[in-house]
Amino acid sequence: MQALVYHGPGRKAWEEVPDPEITDDGDVIVQVEATTICGTDLHILAGDVPEVAPGRILGHEAVGTVVEAGERVHRLTPGDRVLVSCISACGTCRFCRVGRYGQCLDGGGWVLGRRIDGTQAGFVRVPYADTSAYRIPGGAADEEILMLADVLPTGYEVGVLAGGVRPGDLVAVVGAGPVGLAAIAGARLYSPAHVVAVDLSGARLEAARRFGADVTVNDARQDPLAVIRDLTGRLGADVAIEAAGAPATFEMAVKLARPGGRIANIGVHGKPAVLHLEEQWTRDITITTGLVDASSTPALMRLVAAGQLDASRFVTHRFTMDDFDKAYDIFGDAAASGALKVVLTR
Amino acid sequence: MQALVYHGPGRKAWEEVPDPEITDDGDVIVQVEATTICGTDLHILAGDVPEVAPGRILGHEAVGTVVEAGERVHRLTPGDRVLVSCISACGTCRFCRVGRYGQCLDGGGWVLGRRIDGTQAGFVRVPYADTSAYRIPGGAADEEILMLADVLPTGYEVGVLAGGVRPGDLVAVVGAGPVGLAAIAGARLYSPAHVVAVDLSGARLEAARRFGADVTVNDARQDPLAVIRDLTGRLGADVAIEAAGAPATFEMAVKLARPGGRIANIGVHGKPAVLHLEEQWTRDITITTGLVDASSTPALMRLVAAGQLDASRFVTHRFTMDDFDKAYDIFGDAAASGALKVVLTR
Amino acid sequence: MQALVYHGPGRKAWEEVPDPEITDDGDVIVQVEATTICGTDLHILAGDVPEVAPGRILGHEAVGTVVEAGERVHRLTPGDRVLVSCISACGTCRFCRVGRYGQCLDGGGWVLGRRIDGTQAGFVRVPYADTSAYRIPGGAADEEILMLADVLPTGYEVGVLAGGVRPGDLVAVVGAGPVGLAAIAGARLYSPAHVVAVDLSGARLEAARRFGADVTVNDARQDPLAVIRDLTGRLGADVAIEAAGAPATFEMAVKLARPGGRIANIGVHGKPAVLHLEEQWTRDITITTGLVDASSTPALMRLVAAGQLDASRFVTHRFTMDDFDKAYDIFGDAAASGALKVVLTR
Amino acid sequence: MQALVYHGPGRKAWEEVPDPEITDDGDVIVQVEATTICGTDLHILAGDVPEVAPGRILGHEAVGTVVEAGERVHRLTPGDRVLVSCISACGTCRFCRVGRYGQCLDGGGWVLGRRIDGTQAGFVRVPYADTSAYRIPGGAADEEILMLADVLPTGYEVGVLAGGVRPGDLVAVVGAGPVGLAAIAGARLYSPAHVVAVDLSGARLEAARRFGADVTVNDARQDPLAVIRDLTGRLGADVAIEAAGAPATFEMAVKLARPGGRIANIGVHGKPAVLHLEEQWTRDITITTGLVDASSTPALMRLVAAGQLDASRFVTHRFTMDDFDKAYDIFGDAAASGALKVVLTR
Repeated sequence: MQALVYHGPGRKAWEEVPDPEITDDGDVIVQVEATTICGTDLHILAGDVPEVAPGRILGHEAVGTVVEAGERVHRLTPGDRVLVSCISACGTCRFCRVGRYGQCLDGGGWVLGRRIDGTQAGFVRVPYADTSAYRIPGGAADEEILMLADVLPTGYEVGVLAGGVRPGDLVAVVGAGPVGLAAIAGARLYSPAHVVAVDLSGARLEAARRFGADVTVNDARQDPLAVIRDLTGRLGADVAIEAAGAPATFEMAVKLARPGGRIANIGVHGKPAVLHLEEQWTRDITITTGLVDASSTPALMRLVAAGQLDASRFVTHRFTMDDFDKAYDIFGDAAASGALKVVLTR
Repeated sequence: MQALVYHGPGRKAWEEVPDPEITDDGDVIVQVEATTICGTDLHILAGDVPEVAPGRILGHEAVGTVVEAGERVHRLTPGDRVLVSCISACGTCRFCRVGRYGQCLDGGGWVLGRRIDGTQAGFVRVPYADTSAYRIPGGAADEEILMLADVLPTGYEVGVLAGGVRPGDLVAVVGAGPVGLAAIAGARLYSPAHVVAVDLSGARLEAARRFGADVTVNDARQDPLAVIRDLTGRLGADVAIEAAGAPATFEMAVKLARPGGRIANIGVHGKPAVLHLEEQWTRDITITTGLVDASSTPALMRLVAAGQLDASRFVTHRFTMDDFDKAYDIFGDAAASGALKVVLTR
Repeated sequence: MQALVYHGPGRKAWEEVPDPEITDDGDVIVQVEATTICGTDLHILAGDVPEVAPGRILGHEAVGTVVEAGERVHRLTPGDRVLVSCISACGTCRFCRVGRYGQCLDGGGWVLGRRIDGTQAGFVRVPYADTSAYRIPGGAADEEILMLADVLPTGYEVGVLAGGVRPGDLVAVVGAGPVGLAAIAGARLYSPAHVVAVDLSGARLEAARRFGADVTVNDARQDPLAVIRDLTGRLGADVAIEAAGAPATFEMAVKLARPGGRIANIGVHGKPAVLHLEEQWTRDITITTGLVDASSTPALMRLVAAGQLDASRFVTHRFTMDDFDKAYDIFGDAAASGALKVVLTR
Repeated sequence: MQALVYHGPGRKAWEEVPDPEITDDGDVIVQVEATTICGTDLHILAGDVPEVAPGRILGHEAVGTVVEAGERVHRLTPGDRVLVSCISACGTCRFCRVGRYGQCLDGGGWVLGRRIDGTQAGFVRVPYADTSAYRIPGGAADEEILMLADVLPTGYEVGVLAGGVRPGDLVAVVGAGPVGLAAIAGARLYSPAHVVAVDLSGARLEAARRFGADVTVNDARQDPLAVIRDLTGRLGADVAIEAAGAPATFEMAVKLARPGGRIANIGVHGKPAVLHLEEQWTRDITITTGLVDASSTPALMRLVAAGQLDASRFVTHRFTMDDFDKAYDIFGDAAASGALKVVLTR
């Protein structure tokens, strides 16, 4: 088959490789119909994720068809159309038993395209398939369901659910890239009074409006805290979601939260941040961090199937897989291309 | 002033009575700009609420203006435009301290138009005003805010919050009268996959669609359990809300819930129901009952003010207060008039 | 091997049968070191559980040693000392994924000694072993761990956790048989101010005191509601746990709860109860029912291993397995024998 | 009356001052029978709390008798024996309505001995008395109830409740001063498997054992993370409570928590800490900060009254009020004196 292979920092190729094979009775082999590129893939290519060895096939999101199933797989059979989640789950360890699949102790978690070969390929081996791939209800479009592999559950679980968004809240989302937009869309499911998006890019803030932000703040020009205080009787945000991954944006998110508020970090961080405990120790705040578990995937799928959640808004560009290089270029230069999510089909 | 006075079962009159006076330092006197009639008022007139003595001014919902405030009132001043909640709260008893204002042990709870004179009048005395009347944000229309006095928080708190509705759920609402419609609108705030309304009246089911039900079942013709099972892989409703108040509808709500589901009773009951424990003891169900607390009023007001919740849909008929008799007739004959909520203004 | 075989209502025998064999890759075979008898086994023998076919080996609780493991079992290996839970769990269905193992849709739930052969035998086949049997930490005694197979998690999960017991609460437990005692011991983990046990038997009430009830009420002689009101400023119980399984005891539990209180039903019911909605609709109560999930088993095991929970108090009688008939007699005549739990070892 | 008056950094005197008077209808005047000194009082004397003006009477904890009540006070009358909480609550602002009294927007929160005169005096004026002072049940000793004014609810609410301690957990408490000991005693109410106390002082660790720590670690000699990993299968603490108030101890608490764990900060901080997001962003942690609300006071009082919680263990030294200087010396030199809480009576 053809696959997108990582060859060390800055180097990748769409090239011929052997087909994957079942190596454990719990595996399935999925023929990939549609896959996408994640910001994390760019980090890998930049050399920031050292555990990814050269030779690794990238990608951790796919929609496809089961073509072979190991003997112990009992929920899927060949021919099933499935979503391959970014998170694999053994289903039996201490963390999986409470739905924290991202923390799986037994070879699950985020492994696809990182510790084992991934989904940017003709076929992919999915371990622990019963708890790591989801049969797709009839009617939903491939590219819409594909958004449930990572970006939507990440924004929803790590931002909205961890942040405890409730009807009537003011939710601030710092960073309006794809994951921030997913947090905005996810927050809207709980009917906040206001969703305030904060970013430095006008294009991203425009996207934020399309995804459900009713207030946008370009923090190069305007103080988001002042805007939010005006909307909340001087109190601050009920929930502040960090979706940018820098010390400064995290510190801003903490400042935006009201006493008693919650700060949910989604951002991928490479450096420590300063936590101003001398200001915050009295303010009853709650800060959360987290990896996506994809435990919300079934609920999100019901929402998409019922037409209550429009996941297709993320898709800005479409390619066939032999255009993978171009797709990476477009996605990697989002500032110029306006790309949110690109979809690659066979 | 003029007021709507109860004179025993079947008898009422819009007549001249003395103006109310402050009797406790915590009271305010509110000039009523808009009031409405509740199904409970019909129950009182039918003689079903024996604690209501002849001579009582009816009504427990109002929007108006503070004209006088007792000395210990510190959150309201004359001239403030306020919502008078159906629930008064002492704010200091064991129940009020945890937000269960409906269970107030100290002379609060539902007292207006029941134990003390009510809001269907030119003026009303509101006890414990600091915790029983809410200043109205600029911009929101009187008649919209008036819906937050009782009907909306009742459907939202006793139905939706007690039922624990979550995104992706199937919510069944049994009974599509005003409170059932409030439950439907309230459930929509949590983005369920489906809201199934069940009623015997085609007109009510049509209203249910306008308030957000995507599936309607006339249970004279169709089995709601069959419909719900088809939508949920044979499981049943995640949440079943009873908003009709009869043993049969309660028993139906229990049947509609899936294993692990929740049944939230809002209905006013005059008779016991049968609880089929021999079927239900293994099914992990949760049944809740409750009076409204109006603890959600601030959040609902933020939603109305932000344009996220359209409360005006309830209002089908408008009168001035000297047409109170006609308003009662129209509201009392909802089957013919299609009345949901009638608004009376000075 | 020898096993206790059900031969239809009223008939059972400890007799020679074939050893169990692995029939699915997820099974293990466990050599039973210790097992016990549950009240449910008596119900089966009385003919009350029609789905149990003659020829079935009874029993759903065991401590033993893995002697063989199917190929897809990855958490257990031969030689492991394990607790066999009364609940088997596929681990992958909708209910198992949220820890509601008792509602497993895929052949789990309570199946041992009911739909498949059970633990009152020399060996037992345990399906879905990775999620249905628990490795035992060193140091804990067999007979203590055996109490975690059913009785303790049942009282704890279905009574205490569903009832939401909190420090400072008054908890009423109606019925002081083994499961009621487990609820009492479980409630004590949350430091209630008072645990009030209600029963008709003086011996059971004495046992209740040993398990942690500080107040006992023989409801043949004393009105439990009066006692509880005296202890709670006239309010009633914060949590009422039904552990007797009759309409009258359920109705009493509902009456004992304060406004805003919770009623957790553990009892096995054969008949419907009357729910006095005409009294309860305004009282903000919550009623729960449920099967045990055994999702608390790991936490309970940590408590036993740390010496924080004394599970051995349940064991009143000990036998070897060839005395199974006598053990059933003693356990079946608890009124005379004072038996709580009997332990049978090989 | 006599009172302990702050005269600027390093200066205080027990001297004659005018008696307090009612200045608002919601006030009561309480004759102080017993009061105590808090670590915060030492901070004020060190000049670390600049909002405290010279001339202020210190102290925010008392047990006493109501001698006069303002007209709008309706829950207390002269002669009532009351606990004066460290937190005053208006009872009607947005935060008070949800039980966050520590964040009161209307002149409540921690005001006694800080913004208004305090309890280290013959008499004290308590504002918002209905929601700021608690009638004491018969039977409980003054000095035991006095511990519910601040130290116990602080450890319990800000440490144990915010930390979400559950039965079977491993709870680490960093810092075994009075508040850390309160967290240990409070954690024990939820039956953790282990409470690990970490401190540099052998005497404090001994006290920790008396309050319920089953493991103690002197982190000058032993690595607490290694100890905790050994007890938890290499995972880490379920809950880590910071009760020391330094950057290093906060950073240690974060490190001690397992993936999915909670870190509850109680410590008073004067400097920022470093939050290692580059390590923690994937670990699903929750960090909380907070001021005590004293919302748990009624539940704690029920526990003390029922003999389920021994609050008297805190009291190491007793004085009469004219020995206030000596009491401050003893309390201020806890390392030498071993003082936990000192009690001063009239």
